[in-house]
Amino acid sequence: MATKANSVAHSTLVKVDPFVPADQQKGLHNRWHPDIPAFATVKPGQVFKVECVDWTGAQIGNNDCSDDIKNVDLTKIHNLSGPIAVEGTEPGDCLVVDILDVTPFEKMPWGYTGIFELENGGGLFAREFNSKAAKAIWDFEGVYATSRHIPGVRFAGVTHPGLIGTAPSPELLAKWNERETGLIAQHADSVPPVAFAPNATGAYVGQDLAQDVRDKIAREGARTIPGREHGGNCDIKNLSKGSRCYFPVFVEGANLSVGDLHFSQGDGEISFCGAIEMAGIITFKTSIIKGGVEKFALKQPIFMPSPVDPLYSQKLIFEGISVDIHGDGKQYNMDATVAYKQAALNAIAYLMKLGYSREQAYLLLSAAPVESHVGAIVDSPNACVTLAIPTGIFDFDILPKEEGLAKRDLGGCAIRSDGVV
Amino acid sequence: MATKANSVAHSTLVKVDPFVPADQQKGLHNRWHPDIPAFATVKPGQVFKVECVDWTGAQIGNNDCSDDIKNVDLTKIHNLSGPIAVEGTEPGDCLVVDILDVTPFEKMPWGYTGIFELENGGGLFAREFNSKAAKAIWDFEGVYATSRHIPGVRFAGVTHPGLIGTAPSPELLAKWNERETGLIAQHADSVPPVAFAPNATGAYVGQDLAQDVRDKIAREGARTIPGREHGGNCDIKNLSKGSRCYFPVFVEGANLSVGDLHFSQGDGEISFCGAIEMAGIITFKTSIIKGGVEKFALKQPIFMPSPVDPLYSQKLIFEGISVDIHGDGKQYNMDATVAYKQAALNAIAYLMKLGYSREQAYLLLSAAPVESHVGAIVDSPNACVTLAIPTGIFDFDILPKEEGLAKRDLGGCAIRSDGVV
Amino acid sequence: MATKANSVAHSTLVKVDPFVPADQQKGLHNRWHPDIPAFATVKPGQVFKVECVDWTGAQIGNNDCSDDIKNVDLTKIHNLSGPIAVEGTEPGDCLVVDILDVTPFEKMPWGYTGIFELENGGGLFAREFNSKAAKAIWDFEGVYATSRHIPGVRFAGVTHPGLIGTAPSPELLAKWNERETGLIAQHADSVPPVAFAPNATGAYVGQDLAQDVRDKIAREGARTIPGREHGGNCDIKNLSKGSRCYFPVFVEGANLSVGDLHFSQGDGEISFCGAIEMAGIITFKTSIIKGGVEKFALKQPIFMPSPVDPLYSQKLIFEGISVDIHGDGKQYNMDATVAYKQAALNAIAYLMKLGYSREQAYLLLSAAPVESHVGAIVDSPNACVTLAIPTGIFDFDILPKEEGLAKRDLGGCAIRSDGVV
Amino acid sequence: MATKANSVAHSTLVKVDPFVPADQQKGLHNRWHPDIPAFATVKPGQVFKVECVDWTGAQIGNNDCSDDIKNVDLTKIHNLSGPIAVEGTEPGDCLVVDILDVTPFEKMPWGYTGIFELENGGGLFAREFNSKAAKAIWDFEGVYATSRHIPGVRFAGVTHPGLIGTAPSPELLAKWNERETGLIAQHADSVPPVAFAPNATGAYVGQDLAQDVRDKIAREGARTIPGREHGGNCDIKNLSKGSRCYFPVFVEGANLSVGDLHFSQGDGEISFCGAIEMAGIITFKTSIIKGGVEKFALKQPIFMPSPVDPLYSQKLIFEGISVDIHGDGKQYNMDATVAYKQAALNAIAYLMKLGYSREQAYLLLSAAPVESHVGAIVDSPNACVTLAIPTGIFDFDILPKEEGLAKRDLGGCAIRSDGVV
Repeated sequence: MATKANSVAHSTLVKVDPFVPADQQKGLHNRWHPDIPAFATVKPGQVFKVECVDWTGAQIGNNDCSDDIKNVDLTKIHNLSGPIAVEGTEPGDCLVVDILDVTPFEKMPWGYTGIFELENGGGLFAREFNSKAAKAIWDFEGVYATSRHIPGVRFAGVTHPGLIGTAPSPELLAKWNERETGLIAQHADSVPPVAFAPNATGAYVGQDLAQDVRDKIAREGARTIPGREHGGNCDIKNLSKGSRCYFPVFVEGANLSVGDLHFSQGDGEISFCGAIEMAGIITFKTSIIKGGVEKFALKQPIFMPSPVDPLYSQKLIFEGISVDIHGDGKQYNMDATVAYKQAALNAIAYLMKLGYSREQAYLLLSAAPVESHVGAIVDSPNACVTLAIPTGIFDFDILPKEEGLAKRDLGGCAIRSDGVV
Repeated sequence: MATKANSVAHSTLVKVDPFVPADQQKGLHNRWHPDIPAFATVKPGQVFKVECVDWTGAQIGNNDCSDDIKNVDLTKIHNLSGPIAVEGTEPGDCLVVDILDVTPFEKMPWGYTGIFELENGGGLFAREFNSKAAKAIWDFEGVYATSRHIPGVRFAGVTHPGLIGTAPSPELLAKWNERETGLIAQHADSVPPVAFAPNATGAYVGQDLAQDVRDKIAREGARTIPGREHGGNCDIKNLSKGSRCYFPVFVEGANLSVGDLHFSQGDGEISFCGAIEMAGIITFKTSIIKGGVEKFALKQPIFMPSPVDPLYSQKLIFEGISVDIHGDGKQYNMDATVAYKQAALNAIAYLMKLGYSREQAYLLLSAAPVESHVGAIVDSPNACVTLAIPTGIFDFDILPKEEGLAKRDLGGCAIRSDGVV
Repeated sequence: MATKANSVAHSTLVKVDPFVPADQQKGLHNRWHPDIPAFATVKPGQVFKVECVDWTGAQIGNNDCSDDIKNVDLTKIHNLSGPIAVEGTEPGDCLVVDILDVTPFEKMPWGYTGIFELENGGGLFAREFNSKAAKAIWDFEGVYATSRHIPGVRFAGVTHPGLIGTAPSPELLAKWNERETGLIAQHADSVPPVAFAPNATGAYVGQDLAQDVRDKIAREGARTIPGREHGGNCDIKNLSKGSRCYFPVFVEGANLSVGDLHFSQGDGEISFCGAIEMAGIITFKTSIIKGGVEKFALKQPIFMPSPVDPLYSQKLIFEGISVDIHGDGKQYNMDATVAYKQAALNAIAYLMKLGYSREQAYLLLSAAPVESHVGAIVDSPNACVTLAIPTGIFDFDILPKEEGLAKRDLGGCAIRSDGVV
Repeated sequence: MATKANSVAHSTLVKVDPFVPADQQKGLHNRWHPDIPAFATVKPGQVFKVECVDWTGAQIGNNDCSDDIKNVDLTKIHNLSGPIAVEGTEPGDCLVVDILDVTPFEKMPWGYTGIFELENGGGLFAREFNSKAAKAIWDFEGVYATSRHIPGVRFAGVTHPGLIGTAPSPELLAKWNERETGLIAQHADSVPPVAFAPNATGAYVGQDLAQDVRDKIAREGARTIPGREHGGNCDIKNLSKGSRCYFPVFVEGANLSVGDLHFSQGDGEISFCGAIEMAGIITFKTSIIKGGVEKFALKQPIFMPSPVDPLYSQKLIFEGISVDIHGDGKQYNMDATVAYKQAALNAIAYLMKLGYSREQAYLLLSAAPVESHVGAIVDSPNACVTLAIPTGIFDFDILPKEEGLAKRDLGGCAIRSDGVV
C-alpha cells in the first residue's frame, strides 16, 4: 500500500520565509560574482526545489496603497536563491535545466504588479507618463489570477522565473562592468538611469564569508537588472514551468541562481516590475552536455517552451511603428523599441475606451499573457511591432463593435497615500 | 441539381498577368498618393478578389542564379493592386477588411526569398555580412513550401499580404514625407539608405490619368517600403488568410490597395524580401464602422489573427540582448533592434552547426514561420528579444543532443553567376 | 524574370464538371472492386491534382428547398475519382499519401449539409426525429463558410476528403461482402438499413471496359458507404489538407481513389451527409514504403494531422453517457454510440435555447468543426462521450449566463416543398 | 511589506492522510446517496481546497510488484471527499464549479496506472488479453510524469478529478438502481460484470451518523463506478485544472463530492484505472445560476475546458472501425465501442513494434494524453473512431520510417510476484 516510506518528497535546497526581509535570510544573494560560493550542490538528474522570496525581499504589501512601491529600496534587488552547483560541470559545458514547476507559496496566494516612480525605478513609459507609484494586487486562485484593482479580467498564469542564470567568470564579469559603465558615462544625467553600475550599498550574500570576499563581491558584483550572456533577468514569460533551458557554463559547477518569480507576465514586462511578482517555489532537474557551448554555438541560453503555457487562440492585435506620433512626430530609424512603445500605447488607448484608467491598462498589459511579435525589421525606416491581447481573459466582449465600445466603471488601481497619480 | 446558374463565382476586380512587367498592366500602382483614383468600387458585404503580381513585378525568375536579385530595379516596387473604394466610407471611419483567402496562381506554383546586395536593397545583416545577392526558390505543394536551395525543411504557409493599406490624405502624406526626408537628411551617406524619399523614377499608376495628375503622384507619392499609420508594408505574417483587420480611413472610399503577397514569412522578414514572395490572388470582404477612428482610438490598424495559421507547438528558442558581442562588444541602450539581431545571429550560428550555409540559414529564418517575441524591454540596459524556430518544419531532429549536432551536406542556395558570395 | 516557361502548374489527372451528372463523366467510379483499372498512373514524388464531383454527382442544388435531398438516388453514390496507380507499389507496401490541398472549384463556391429522410438515407437521429429532408446551403468565402439557413455562425473550413482509400484485393472484397451481408441478414427489416449489399443498380465505372468486367464490378463491387481496412468513407475531419496518411496496399499500384470532399465537418458527421459537401480539387503527393504493412502493423490507415487545421481554443463541451434518458430510460452496456447520441442531443437542446430549430442545430453539429472525444470507456455500464462546440464560430456569446440564454430569431433551414418537417 | 497578516491561505475543508486507509478517515464516502449529509458548507464565491486520497484509499504501493493490484478490494472504491454544500443552492439550479487547481501531495510525488485482473476489475481488453495484474509507477517531476516501468516517455499532466458530481435526489437514485440492476439481470454471468448493484460490503461514510442512516446508505447507495446524470465517474481528462463545469443540482446545497484524482489520462482510460491515479488536493470556487437546469436544458453537466491543458501539436493517429478483425472478423452495427477498441489495438500493435510490451503499451495509452475522436458515426455499418498519440511525449522519434521502426529494449512494467502475465 501507499506509505510514507515509499513516498519521498523532492528535497528543498534553499528555504526562505517570504515575510522576512531578504537580507536576514540564508541562501540568497543580490549581485552576480564568481566568488559567491555554491550554497548547495546537486547531482545531474536529481529533482530538487528552491524557494524564493519576491524580487524585493518582502518590501511590498497586500494592501490598497502604493507607498511601498514609491519607497522601494532598489539597491537590494533582486534577491536570488542559490547558487546551486551541479557536480561535474565545467566552463564551456552546457547546463540543461528543466524548469519542472513554479508555484506560489500556499501561505501567500497573492502577488503584485507595480508602476514605479520616474525617479525610483521607472518603466517603459516613465517619462511619457511622468510615472507616480501605483500597483495592482493579484489574488491567485489555482491556475488563475484576478485583481480587485483591475476588475473584469481573469487569466491563467504562465508561471516562470523572471531571473535565472549561471555565474559569470571573472572575465565575463569584467566585460559586463566595462561595457555598462561605458554606457552610463555617455548618459550620465539620464532619469531613470540607462544602466546600473556595481554598488556596494545594499549588496548581500546570505552565506558565511570572509569580510574581504564579501567586500569584493559588493564592490565588483554586477547588478541583476539586465539579462546578459548567462541568462539573468531576461524576463521571458515562456521560460515557464515545463520548459527546458540550455545555459552556457562559465565557472566550475555552473552555479545556477534563480529568483524574481512571476505568476504571469506580458511580453515586454512594460511597467518595470510589470509581471505579477510573487514569492514561491521552483522545481528543477539538470543535466550536463560536455562542451555544449561549442557544440551549439551557445552565446546565450536557448530553450524549448512548455506544453502547458496558456492557450488563448482569439486575440486583438495592435500595431506599432518606429514613429513617435504621440507628440513630436519624430521619425526613428528602424527602432523596434519605439515600435513596441507605439503598439503598447495604441493598446492602452483602446483599453481606456473600455473604461480602464491609463494606469490600469499599463498594469494589465504588463501582467497579462499578452504577446508581442517583431513583425518586420527591414522596411526602412519603420520597424513594425505587434502586441496581442487575448480576448478570453476578459469577462466581457472587448472586440470592436459597430456601436463602439461601452465604457464601464472599472474602479481604479492602488495609488499613493497622497493621492498623486 | 447543382448548375452553373446556381453557382456564381466571386468577381475579380483586378486581373493581372504575373509574367508581364508590372508597368504594362492596369490596376497597379507603386506609390501612395491621395490623387490615385479608385480603380474599382465595391459595396460593403461584397466578396471580391484581387490579383497581384509579385512585389517586383516579375523581375525574379525560377532558376538557380541570383543575378536577377542583384540587378533588381527597386524604384519600381512595390506593385500594388487597387485602389478599391468601398461605397459610403468617409475619413474617420474604420474599414473592416476580412482577408478571406490568399493563394498563389495555379499556373505559378513557386516563390522566392532573396538576400539583397548591400548596395541594392540591403537587409538586416547587409553590413555585417557585406551581403551579395543570393536566393532560394520555393515550390508550392498545396499548403506546403519546399526549396531545392534549402533542403531538409517543409512547412505550411501562412499566406498573407505583406502590404495592405488605405490611401493617405494629403495631410498625412505630407507628414510622412516631411518626417522621412528629415531622417534621410540626418543620415545622408548611409548604405543602405535609412529611408526612401519620393522618387519620380519608376513611379507608375496603371490607369488613364491626365499627365499633370500622373506627374504629381510621381513627384509627391510616398514610397511603399515602410509600414505607416494606414497599414502599408507592415509585413506582419499573421495578417493572414482568415484574419480581420480594422483600418483607419483617411479619404472618401478608403481606397484600399494591396500587394507584396507572401506564401510564408518569419517574424522580422530579415533578409529584406525575406518572405516567400509570390504573385497570387487575395479574396476580401469589407464593412464600415462609422466614426471608428474615434470609437477605437485607431492610430494604426488593429486586427484579429486567423484560426488557420499553422500550429507547430514544439520550438527551439534563441535569445538576444542589446549588446553587440559579435565584434566590438558595444553596449546599446534598450535597443530591441539590436536584441533582435543578436537572437537571429545566435539562431544562424546554430543552424550552421547543422550544415546550412550562413546564407541558407539567413534565408530560412526569413521565410519559415519563426516567431520573434519582445521578451523584456525594461531591464536597463538590455532589451531581450527571442526568436523561435518550429522544430516540426525539419525532416530531421534539430534539438540539442549530448553528442552534439550532426553536420549534414545540405547543398547551397542560388548565388551570383560570378560566384561571389 | 518570372515566365510561363519557368512556371509549371501541377498536372490534373482526373478532370470533371461539377454540374454534369457523374455517370456521364470519365475517371469516376462508385463501387470498390479490384478489377477497376487504374485511370491514371503517377510516379512516387510527383505532385498531382484530382478533381472530384460532390458525393451525389450534382444531384443537389443551391436553392431553398430540400426536395432534392428527399429524392436523392443513393444507388449512385459516392462518385470517386480514380483509381490512381502509383508505380512500383505492391501488396503489403505502405502507400504514403500527402494530402497537400483540398479546395472547392472557384466556379462553385458553395456546398450543402443535408438531413436525409428516414426512408432514404437516414442519419444518426433518423428514427428519433422521424427525419424529413432538410438542408442548409453554405457559401464559401475564402477559408470560411456561412449559411443563410443557419445564421449567426461563421467558421474556418477543415477541408478534407470524406472518402479516400486503396483498392481491395479480391480476398478482402470477399471478406467485406461476407461480413456485411451477414449483418444485413440479422437485421433484415431495419429502416434505415444496417448495411448495404452490392447492388448493380446505379453502379458506374467511367472507363472503357468490356461488358463482362463491367458486370462483375457492378455485381460484386462493395458499396462505398462505410470505412473499412483500406480507408474508404471514414469521414475523419482531420484527414485534411496538410495531413499525411499511411495506407495499406492490397493490389499492384495501390489504386487510390478519392471523393466525397468536405469543406468542413463535425466529428461524427451526424446527419448522414452531415459534412459541408462540395465538389472540388485535391492535390496529392505519394511515396512508397516497401513492406510497410508488416513494418507498422498496418491493419488500417494511420495518419499525421495537419498543422493548419482551424484552432478555436474556447469550447463549450457536452457530455453523454450510454443511457437513453430521452424516453424509455434504458440502460445500455458500455455503448459509446449511445453516449455519443446523448451528448449530441444535449448539445441540440442547448442550441435550441439560443433560438435554433432542432433541424438547424442538427445540421450545425454535423457541419461545424465540433470535436467529439471518447471520455471514458471502462466505467461500467456507462461509456462517456463528449462533444465540444467552439464558441468562436458564433457571432454572439453562447456561454451560459446567469440570466439564461437569449432566444433569437434565427430563421430556418431549407425544407421540403410540401412543408413537412 | 508582505506579512503573514496580509497573506491568507485558502482554507482546506477536507483533510486526509494519503497513507491511511480511507475507511479510517473523516470527510470521505464511497457511495452516492441523498442522505449523506454535507461534511462542510461554503458560500458562493469562496475559494476552498479539498484533499483526496487516491481512489483505492492507499491500497496500492510504490513498488515493482502488481500483487496489490491483483488483490485490490473494489468494494471500497471510490473514496470521495465531501459532500460540500453550497449555500443557497436548490434542486433545479445549476452549480457552476471552477476547478482551479489539482495537484498531488508534495509528500507523495508519484502515482500509478494499473491493468486489473479479468476477475477483479477488468478493463477494455480484459477478455481479449485475459488480463493479469500489472502496473506502472509514475514519478511526478513538476508538471511532468515519467515511469521506470515505461521508459522513453515524459509528458505534461492534465491533472483532473476522474470523479466529481452533485448528490442525487432519492428519485434519481432510484432510477439509477432500477436501470442498472435491470442490465445486470440481463447479463448475470458476465465476467467482468456489466454493472455494479448497491453493495453494503465496503460501504463507508466518514461522518458521525445514526446507524439506521448509515445502513440505508450502505444498502441503497449507488456505486461510484459509472458516470451518470450528475457527473460522477466520467473520467473526462479535459475536466482539468482551469476548467469551469456546470452541474445540475438535485438536492438542497448541491452536495458536491470529488475524488479519483488523476495526474494524467488518455481519452478512454482503457485499462480500467488507466489514468495516473494519485492522491492530492483540488481547489474550487463555486457560483449558482438559479433555475439553470431549465435555462440550459441541463440533463448532464456541461463544461468549458482549461487554457492550460498540454498542447502537443504533432500526433500519430490510428483508426478503428466496428469490425473485429482480430479474430472472428465479426461485423458490428455502428458500434463506436468496438471501433474504439480497434483503434486502440492498432496503436498497441504499433507501439509493440517500437519495443514496448503489450502491457506497457496498454498502460501507456491509458495514462498519456492520447486523444480519441469519434470520426464518423453514420456510415453504416461501420463507426470510425480515431486515437491520437502525441509524438512529443517520446524521447525518440516514433514516426513511420522507410527503414521500419527500430525495436528498442524498453524493459517491462511491474507484474505479479508469481510471474504470471
